[in-house]
This record gives sequence, structure tokens and C-alpha cells, in this order.
Amino acid sequence: MGPPVPKTETARAENRRRNVISTKLTELLGIDHPVICAPMGSVAGARLATAVTRAGGLGLVGVSYGDAAFIDEHMARAAQDGGVWGAGCVMFTFDQRPGLWDKVLGYAPPVVALSFGDFDQIRRYVSSAAASGAHVVVQVHDTEQAVVAVEAGASVLVAQGAEAGGHHKTLATLPLVPAVLDAVEGAVPVVAAGGFADGRGLAAALALGADGVMMGTRFALTEESLATEGFKKTLVSASATDTVNTRAFDVVRGIPWDEVYQARSVSNDFTREWTGRDAELAARRAEIEPRWTAAVARDDTSQRALFAGEVLDLVRDVRPAADVVHRTVTEAEDVLRRLATRVTP
Amino acid sequence: MGPPVPKTETARAENRRRNVISTKLTELLGIDHPVICAPMGSVAGARLATAVTRAGGLGLVGVSYGDAAFIDEHMARAAQDGGVWGAGCVMFTFDQRPGLWDKVLGYAPPVVALSFGDFDQIRRYVSSAAASGAHVVVQVHDTEQAVVAVEAGASVLVAQGAEAGGHHKTLATLPLVPAVLDAVEGAVPVVAAGGFADGRGLAAALALGADGVMMGTRFALTEESLATEGFKKTLVSASATDTVNTRAFDVVRGIPWDEVYQARSVSNDFTREWTGRDAELAARRAEIEPRWTAAVARDDTSQRALFAGEVLDLVRDVRPAADVVHRTVTEAEDVLRRLATRVTP
Ligand SMILES: Cc1cc2nc3c(=O)[nH]c(=O)nc-3n(C[C@H](O)[C@H](O)[C@H](O)COP(=O)(O)O)c2cc1C
Ligand SMILES: Cc1cc2nc3c(=O)[nH]c(=O)nc-3n(C[C@H](O)[C@H](O)[C@H](O)COP(=O)(O)O)c2cc1C
Repeated sequence: MGPPVPKTETARAENRRRNVISTKLTELLGIDHPVICAPMGSVAGARLATAVTRAGGLGLVGVSYGDAAFIDEHMARAAQDGGVWGAGCVMFTFDQRPGLWDKVLGYAPPVVALSFGDFDQIRRYVSSAAASGAHVVVQVHDTEQAVVAVEAGASVLVAQGAEAGGHHKTLATLPLVPAVLDAVEGAVPVVAAGGFADGRGLAAALALGADGVMMGTRFALTEESLATEGFKKTLVSASATDTVNTRAFDVVRGIPWDEVYQARSVSNDFTREWTGRDAELAARRAEIEPRWTAAVARDDTSQRALFAGEVLDLVRDVRPAADVVHRTVTEAEDVLRRLATRVTP
Repeated sequence: MGPPVPKTETARAENRRRNVISTKLTELLGIDHPVICAPMGSVAGARLATAVTRAGGLGLVGVSYGDAAFIDEHMARAAQDGGVWGAGCVMFTFDQRPGLWDKVLGYAPPVVALSFGDFDQIRRYVSSAAASGAHVVVQVHDTEQAVVAVEAGASVLVAQGAEAGGHHKTLATLPLVPAVLDAVEGAVPVVAAGGFADGRGLAAALALGADGVMMGTRFALTEESLATEGFKKTLVSASATDTVNTRAFDVVRGIPWDEVYQARSVSNDFTREWTGRDAELAARRAEIEPRWTAAVARDDTSQRALFAGEVLDLVRDVRPAADVVHRTVTEAEDVLRRLATRVTP
């Protein structure tokens, strides 16, 4: 990580100059652009999160399954950098670790993002995060979860579709987003996730009625992302049709994911060998896990998880994260301007 | 089917008055609205196709697997009604029946839509349809098929995603459409399909860069659709999460679908019993098929195919098809107008 770039008034003014797309999301959070960097485990550290926040979007540190050392390192850095940043936690992995949850809230992130958990228990997480002063973003995958999240006090929803990189349920983003909007009837801003990589996507999300987009795969392929060289190199040349849904990485890591969530990864020798053989992999974990972990440590792309979404066809390079934010917004503005000429006032 | 409504100059003028969204598709085909009714087998007969054509969209008769009596009845009626109409054929089912293909072309449809076939053989279908004077629309499911279809001479592509009702491959519409647009570099208009049911969807498709939408599920739930009462009644109260992907209906009917294509249906006793048990169902077909066919004849919704897409949450009523066309276009215009106010010129 290079020296922190001073957050000058010039940079803020430049963001504001570009800020023509304001939505309920940008107003609520006080950000310049309706673009969120997904809280990706092992990918979205402080460097990526702060780069997105400085560029006027919302950067989220990928606390994910929650590792104390990672939280102390990355949340401290992001907090020091300031601005509107946040941390994203995979809810169910905090259930037995209230101390770790308190550690996350201890850094007073302006935004806490919650994903993947027991929606019966969500009220507990939402209310403790809200009590800490944070805006609470909850990722949902169907209209039922959306309604429960709003009832539990979520301040923003992320409606995520199955074309997403990483974990997801089955419904696709395009029909899910308007269905969620209809279900929550304007109670909170709704952000669309899964399948977005550029300004065409942001413009489409706004057309559906969403208040912004969250992008994962696109931000994983940035200079500031913690993803390994092997991961980035494989993904920039892979296609949507190279991705598969699998539980193999969860089983080998021994993470007790609910079976309704699969993870989308670029396929490799490990997914080809183990996808669909969960019980056998679980039974042979003692033998396979150490070998697999060693391969991951070597950045062996034939074995490691290569979480990525169907947007891969739209992502052909690794760029600075600020560039991703600004290109996305500028392109979306161009699209909206082009579409505006189609309708006579 | 009621008496044919005369296609008055008033109706045309009304369409044109509404025609503010013109695209490469509307210009090429000479239609008023960038909205296509999908060529749904057993659903899109002449009555639905002509209703959509009269409303200013493109109505397609669902020739589907090709039945001579159906073709003679419905294509003749649609041809008599005139305007810009077409017929949609499931390509692979015509491979051994050149006479039936000639029968389709014999009705001189202004548009021929081709879907689901061997993309190595597509040139034959495209060139014979084009030689008959038709615009040739080809449905594709990935960028590879898109490039092959353009090389074969397609005049329009439909990029269809996996949230669609009926048969589809795996990629979702939202990331697929821009990927197809990038792959064909503006060579032909690209229509988006799978996941569209209203004007928000049409506006989103235009934002992605598409030249229009094709809707199936939404038009299946119209007054003019040939779908049975049981089908319509079940679908209007079903949700996206009630749908499943299955090959069971293809296996029981003995239609040799390539395994890369699954069909999305509302789940029922038949899908719950047979999905994933293709080999056993095929082996016991002689026993099961007659019983199943008799149940379908009784409109038994616990057994019959209930093809429908993830848009079900957005479709809560059965309406006249012209209403669907006009509401979709009017709502899309409203969305574009609202978005236009977001960008300062
Ligand atoms: C490499 C990678 C890692 C991810 N890790 C997490 C995670 O730890 N927690 C989480 O809530 N979501 C995670 N996601 C999912 C994202 O939050 C987001 O929903 C998704 O990336 C959106 O789809 P997209 O990849 O098409 O942009 C991950 C996604 C990717 C690509
Ligand atoms: C009831 C039903 C029947 C269908 N039958 C056919 C067919 O015979 N041939 C075909 O090419 N597509 C067929 N489709 C798929 C449509 O062409 C179209 O791609 C799809 O409906 C678009 O997705 P949507 O349902 O979300 O609008 C069918 C779809 C439905 C809902």
C-alpha cells in the first residue's frame, strides 16, 4: 500500500462536479456517486475501500467471516482515512462470536453491511449496528428477505442476483430488483448487485428504479484489490461461460454455509473434481484440506477459489478503483443523456 | 377468436403518436414500438400475435415444434390480418422435415424467428428464410452463438437470459446483453429477452444498449393468449421462487432437446417427481406418457408444463395484449423522462 493520498478539497470538488446522478442512496449516506464496492473477503481491504470512498463512492472493507487481525489492520486504516466508508460482515459467522461483532462496531464504521445470515436473527445485528450510529445495509436475495430486513430496521437494501460473483441464491438481478422495489414500497433505498460492471449497468439499474449499484467482480479486478496476481490474471481472460456454481470451497474450508447459497467461481481443477460431491469432500476433509490450503498459499489457480460473476465478459483489465468509479458514472451519464434525446418533453 | 378488428388509420396514428421510442429495431422492421411478443408454442396463436402487431409491436406466431394444422390455421390468419408479423420456429425440430419448413415460409411472414438449434446448421435456415424475403431474428444465449448467428446472416439477435420462461441456457440477461452487444459491434439490432415484464424493464434494456425487448411470460398472461385457464390462474398467483429448471416435460414428450437447454416452469407434482430423473423417465415413457398426456388434456395443473419466468412477481393480472404493449411503452417513456431530469445537459 502506497502512502495515503491526501484527501484534498480539490478531489472533493472534482467529485462533486461529477456528481450529477444523485439518488436516495447518495442523499442518505452523503456520498457523491451511487456506486458501492462490495465487501469482498480477502479482496476488499482498506486500500480498495478507501480508494472507492475517496473517489466518491462507498468503499466497504470485506470483514467477511471475521478475523480479528484483519479487522484491526484494515478497519483501523479505513477509519483513519475517514469519509463515508463501511465494513461488510457475513452474518452467520458472527453468531457464536459476540466479541468479534463488538470489535467491528468498535471502529465506528459509518456504514455496516450485513449479508448471508439467518433472517430470523437479523434484528439483533441491525439494531446493534444502528445503535452504534451506522447506516445498516442488508443484502437480500428474494422479496421475503427484503420485507424481513426492512421490518428489522435496515436503512438500505442490496438486492443481489444469481449472476453475482461469490455467494448468492437463485433469482436473477433483472427481475429481482423491481420485485424488491415493489415489495418494500419505497421504505428504503434499494441497491442492485450482481451483473454490473460499467455505466450501462448503472444506467439500467436506475431505469429499474434502483438507487445505485454494488459491484464485486469489477472492483476485485483493480490495482488496489488484495486479490492475488494469479486470481487477477485468470479472471481478466476468463468469460462468463467459464463460471460455475459450487459449494466445494465452502466444504473444504469447513464453513457451515446454508445449502441455499452457492458460490460462483471460475471453474478450475478443484471445482471440476469436487462440485456436487459435498458429502464425500466433507468426509475426506482431514486428508484434502491441508493440501488444498498449501496450494492456495502458493496462489495455485488450479485449486484456489476464483470467485467471479457473469460480468467477466465486460471486464478485460485491471485498473485503479477510482477509474472504475469515474468511468462507471461518466458512462452512465452519457447513457442517460443519449436516452433523454429519445423522449420529447 | 372474435371478429378481426379493422386496422384503421386512427389506430395506426394513435400508435405513431405514442411512438417516441424508436430504435434500430423499429426502424429496420417498420414497427411502432420496440416490443416483441415471444413465439410461444401453444400460447402465441394468431389472436395474440395480431393483437401485438396491431398495437404497434411485433407479434410472432409460436410455430414452435411445427404442426401442419397449427401452421395452416394460425399463420393463414395472421397473414390475412397483415402488418408486421412473424412466425417463430424451434430450429432443431425442423431438421428432418424440409417440407414443413417450406410450409412456414409459404405464408411469407415478414419476420421469421429462429431459436434453439445446431448453430453449425443455422446458415441453411437463415438463408432460406432471408431468400423468402423475411427479416430473420435469431435467439442466442451466449456471445459465441451471437457471432455465429451474425456471420450466418441474421438481421436481428435476441439475447435471452436464464431467468426466461421456457427453454434457456445458463447466463443471465443483465450481463449477457452488453456482452452480446460488444461481441457483434453494432452489426445488427439486439433485442433483450428474459426477465422483462414492464416499462422499467424496457427502459433498462435500452440503457444496456439493446434495441428492444421480447417478452414471453407477460404476453402468455393476456386475454388473447391460447394458454389454458388453469395455466393462467396458476401463474398469476405464483412467484419467481416457485419456478424450477427442468427437462422432465421434454423427456415425457420425447422431444430430443440438447441437454444444455433447460426449461423454466412453475413447479408442480410432475416437476417435483421427475426433475433430475431423466434416464428413468425416458425408460418408463411408454407407461407414463399416456397418463401425462391425458392429464394435460384435462388442464391438470399438477401435471402440465407451466412454463414461466422469474418475472412472475411482476405479473399479477391477465390483460389485453394491446394494454401490455401500451403500458410497457408508456411506462418506459416515463422512466426515461424521469432519468433525463437527473442529467444536466
Ligand atoms: C471475489 C469475491 C468475493 C466476495 N466475497 C464476499 C464476502 O466475503 N461477503 C459478501 O457479502 N459478499 C461477497 N461477494 C459478493 C459481493 O458482495 C457482491 O454481492 C457480488 O460481487 C455482486 O456481483 P458482481 O460480482 O457481479 O459485481 C464476493 C464477490 C466476489 C467477486
Ligand atoms: C409459456 C412459454 C412458452 C414458450 N415457448 C417457446 C417456444 O415454443 N419457442 C421459443 O423459441 N421460445 C419459447 N419460450 C421462450 C420465449 O421465446 C422467450 O425467450 C422467453 O419467454 C423470454 O423470457 P420471459 O418469459 O421472462 O419474458 C416460451 C416461453 C414461455 C413463457
